[in-house]
Amino acid sequence: MTTMASFAPEHFNWRMDGTVAIVTLDRPDRKNPLTFDSYAELRDCFRALVYADDVDAVVFGSNGGNFCSGGDVHDIIGPLISMSMKELLAFTRMTGDLVKAMIGCGKPVIAAVDGVCVGAGAIIAMSSDMRLASPAAKTAFLFTRVGLAGCDMGACAILPRIIGQGRASELLYTGRSMSAEEGERWGFFNRVVEAGELEAEAVTLAQKLAAGPTFGHMMTKTMLKQEWSMSIDEAIEAEAQAQAICMQTADFKRAYDAFVAREKPVFEGD
Amino acid sequence: MTTMASFAPEHFNWRMDGTVAIVTLDRPDRKNPLTFDSYAELRDCFRALVYADDVDAVVFGSNGGNFCSGGDVHDIIGPLISMSMKELLAFTRMTGDLVKAMIGCGKPVIAAVDGVCVGAGAIIAMSSDMRLASPAAKTAFLFTRVGLAGCDMGACAILPRIIGQGRASELLYTGRSMSAEEGERWGFFNRVVEAGELEAEAVTLAQKLAAGPTFGHMMTKTMLKQEWSMSIDEAIEAEAQAQAICMQTADFKRAYDAFVAREKPVFEGD
Amino acid sequence: MTTMASFAPEHFNWRMDGTVAIVTLDRPDRKNPLTFDSYAELRDCFRALVYADDVDAVVFGSNGGNFCSGGDVHDIIGPLISMSMKELLAFTRMTGDLVKAMIGCGKPVIAAVDGVCVGAGAIIAMSSDMRLASPAAKTAFLFTRVGLAGCDMGACAILPRIIGQGRASELLYTGRSMSAEEGERWGFFNRVVEAGELEAEAVTLAQKLAAGPTFGHMMTKTMLKQEWSMSIDEAIEAEAQAQAICMQTADFKRAYDAFVAREKPVFEGD
Repeated sequence: MTTMASFAPEHFNWRMDGTVAIVTLDRPDRKNPLTFDSYAELRDCFRALVYADDVDAVVFGSNGGNFCSGGDVHDIIGPLISMSMKELLAFTRMTGDLVKAMIGCGKPVIAAVDGVCVGAGAIIAMSSDMRLASPAAKTAFLFTRVGLAGCDMGACAILPRIIGQGRASELLYTGRSMSAEEGERWGFFNRVVEAGELEAEAVTLAQKLAAGPTFGHMMTKTMLKQEWSMSIDEAIEAEAQAQAICMQTADFKRAYDAFVAREKPVFEGD
Repeated sequence: MTTMASFAPEHFNWRMDGTVAIVTLDRPDRKNPLTFDSYAELRDCFRALVYADDVDAVVFGSNGGNFCSGGDVHDIIGPLISMSMKELLAFTRMTGDLVKAMIGCGKPVIAAVDGVCVGAGAIIAMSSDMRLASPAAKTAFLFTRVGLAGCDMGACAILPRIIGQGRASELLYTGRSMSAEEGERWGFFNRVVEAGELEAEAVTLAQKLAAGPTFGHMMTKTMLKQEWSMSIDEAIEAEAQAQAICMQTADFKRAYDAFVAREKPVFEGD
Repeated sequence: MTTMASFAPEHFNWRMDGTVAIVTLDRPDRKNPLTFDSYAELRDCFRALVYADDVDAVVFGSNGGNFCSGGDVHDIIGPLISMSMKELLAFTRMTGDLVKAMIGCGKPVIAAVDGVCVGAGAIIAMSSDMRLASPAAKTAFLFTRVGLAGCDMGACAILPRIIGQGRASELLYTGRSMSAEEGERWGFFNRVVEAGELEAEAVTLAQKLAAGPTFGHMMTKTMLKQEWSMSIDEAIEAEAQAQAICMQTADFKRAYDAFVAREKPVFEGD
């Protein structure tokens, strides 16, 4: 295992609050666009999280009133125009690898969305486990507005499972913005909180998860992905195995002992 | 075929109202926990329902103001702490088998949820076809609170399909309680009715289904499960076959004859 | 490629507004039932749309205050009663082929639902990409009321992905009507608009899509279907390939050039 408390990324911000890591993008003047470099470093960061013993949950926050404005028009879209198919596929696979890495990182990820959350930014929010929003959050899967298809980084598979096929179709075809209120009503956002409390609320929620049975959380995250396209019977058998594993953790015994002693359990993640 | 009107289970309550079976757990003083024995007997009961000619629909009701408090801490969780992996897997498979049996029983199951509905109780509600709630219903997939993972008895596969991936993730990671109002708004509960009318409403709905084309209902239930992980084209072909079978039932002819005669059809389930 | 501007179907109405095709059924006196002939001609029409260069989006509208009353009782249900299994399966496959053709036609389809929308009519709405409704829209998957199962033309696979498994189960088992208000709240309808503005609103939305990157829309539609039963990782790889293809379209360059020139992009669909 490795530690990430002293991780110092070049292309985004990283800080720890206990065992909760808080990631934010670092170009608030331009509403936090992604670049080739920040894409790659984020992907590597979420891949490394699998092995990080000192991180139990992640908050992907906003910066300067905005979450993320997506792929930078000058740094990314410009160069893409003249790329070969081989290069284009390398790029789209790298962006997809960020989503795979987020979903595969083994720790719950909570997005705290303020202001602009568009393009790849909307995808990052979508690929998180839970999402909080400020009333000003504007989320747009705006790929059609730059001449592309709505099928970007897994959106046609994942978004319909969060908000339903009809609402997802509208957002993906039209590229229109989803308000915070719509997002909460449709199940995209778990809760809307004032901008001034947004990050603190997300960190509080992450801390609660970090104080829970983190081996169990890793297994929950694993199975939410693993059972995506299984049959019902396959999923039930997969969970029988996964939960039997969890029943041999010390955290399960800690919870039982605490119950018998009429105390609150203290989980340690093993 | 067998009959179940005179079924007399040892570990839960069973009564018939016409061809509707009403199941309730029988430890109201402790909010109706499950035990090894009641798990096994419920599983066997739902397996037997496949062949029961005198039961057309099932209501899984509440008792003494509560639905089910989940696996009993003393009777189940205590023993699990010291089990071998072989024994643990036998247990988690038995609990999963209850869900498989409910989904495979061929009759619509309606949960009538009052008060506490947690752990395996929440799973039983989730595994029903429809769900009514009283305003006091408190549903929690609280597995993380006993040190385990949210992936229990199929929850990571089934719950997201009912309330969406984001809301399901929150309930499964945090173990927090979902109120009746949230459950209705999110599509978990089909309707909220006063506690005093809850079981009667559920039985009325079950009676309506029992008076309908029950061979068709069996096929609806079968296909809702069968198409879970099919492609769209596979699902459409599967339904072409399933509905063609239903078109050779007498109930289809009964409905047509009644229409022509300007009468209300009387279905007989064949 | 072919053109469809001058398409003159025998069994339904067809007109063009720019590159938007407007389809309506043509028996308003009987609330627009389907017949064997209109089923077959609609299937052929949506199959032809794949190759039609002059149609970019489709509105499936209402006529005389109603959308569609489903399979005609006299023209369809009567004959089905005495058919052989071979004939029945040929029929259910033909109806399923209409859904396959709608989902496979490569152009966004917007249903504009006023009044009665039942049986196969509800299926046509469900199989569209987006749905607008008037306040009077009454949508019922009423197959159980004619003695059949809810599994018709893909309903048990598709409806749960739009409104959730619990609400879909209720509609499919009971055959009860879903109001416009419920439909909007549950994500079946994208928006409710006054009956007098319904078709105009749908055509406006279709025009917006038609003025967008239509190659991209075709790919969005393709992938929404294609990823239906893929794993998350498979879906992400599939989208990496699909979006890389779209990055070599001229529309992607047009959007970038327009952005640099601070103009609004004019898409041409290639």
